[in-house]
Amino acid sequence: MKFCSQCGSSRIVLRVPDGDNLPRFVCAECGTIHYQNPKIVVGCLPEWEGRVLLCKRAIEPRYGLWTLPAGFLENGETIVAGALRETLEEAHARVEPTDLYTVISLPQINQVYMVFRARLIDLDFGPGSESLEVKLCEEAEIPWESLAFRTITRTLRNYFLDRKQGDFPVRVSALERRPPLPPDLLAAG
Amino acid sequence: MKFCSQCGSSRIVLRVPDGDNLPRFVCAECGTIHYQNPKIVVGCLPEWEGRVLLCKRAIEPRYGLWTLPAGFLENGETIVAGALRETLEEAHARVEPTDLYTVISLPQINQVYMVFRARLIDLDFGPGSESLEVKLCEEAEIPWESLAFRTITRTLRNYFLDRKQGDFPVRVSALERRPPLPPDLLAAG
Repeated sequence: MKFCSQCGSSRIVLRVPDGDNLPRFVCAECGTIHYQNPKIVVGCLPEWEGRVLLCKRAIEPRYGLWTLPAGFLENGETIVAGALRETLEEAHARVEPTDLYTVISLPQINQVYMVFRARLIDLDFGPGSESLEVKLCEEAEIPWESLAFRTITRTLRNYFLDRKQGDFPVRVSALERRPPLPPDLLAAG
Repeated sequence: MKFCSQCGSSRIVLRVPDGDNLPRFVCAECGTIHYQNPKIVVGCLPEWEGRVLLCKRAIEPRYGLWTLPAGFLENGETIVAGALRETLEEAHARVEPTDLYTVISLPQINQVYMVFRARLIDLDFGPGSESLEVKLCEEAEIPWESLAFRTITRTLRNYFLDRKQGDFPVRVSALERRPPLPPDLLAAG
């Protein structure tokens, strides 16, 4: 933030406002406090006769890697509506959400992922503009080494484990930054 | 949004960017797209021997009404850490979170509430700067007519019903805008 979105001043300072305890971007000209907060990513894990629907990304980041249909929750939207919209946009798939399944905090990038399990309503799906390909995968067909995000890997791993137990409790967790590579691996590039 | 926070231009237009399908605030000068997304409110329902901890608000909105300790999730924070922080700030209370309990979308005000059930660790609590009073309430003592937010009413109602069943499933719901008053009540002020 370089300019105040309310008055246009460039006198933006990072300071702790009165009565607050965290530094915020504050306009020294008009006093507006510019709060910044985490965003919510909502998505679905669409199921069809034991298989799950994955999308191959047609956009950065992680172009060409596989993901579940998911994206940023929009203003004016419930989390269920957002998950359905993303599934329709990215996989042209219509689903009936069953239950909230994983809730994963990503504090390093200021996001919270929320993935619903969902029943695919029919097989009339295909790639939206942000996907190269959409396909149903058996557990043995999941491209574990080519998944786009750790949130997706965790959600799918939990899913196949929980499915063996026949129970899908809501799984709340966090993914912190990856530990840095040890020096020998860093040196190896 | 009146000025671009990146370049300071006042040429902010509301339009659908290429490849998008919703109108955004876009800077016609430098092209920056200013996305706006819902915020997350995290909080706790602290329990102690069948009673729950409520806070009487010392700030607007809803000054003087009762709430559960809750507030906006901060950047860099997990949802559990945020819920614990708010409970410490507003009620000076230390809790051990048990499970995520209610997740309530408020699409009209672009918020998603997430409330955890939590065990109060000790009775050493008291009002933080945003609270006038903090107290433990039996079910019969809950000030139903003086609760600050419908999210809190819904969470507490669910809680006392679920407690009778001995099971606390995660409850995902939405609160849309209150229906307008019928004409005869409107006329009555």
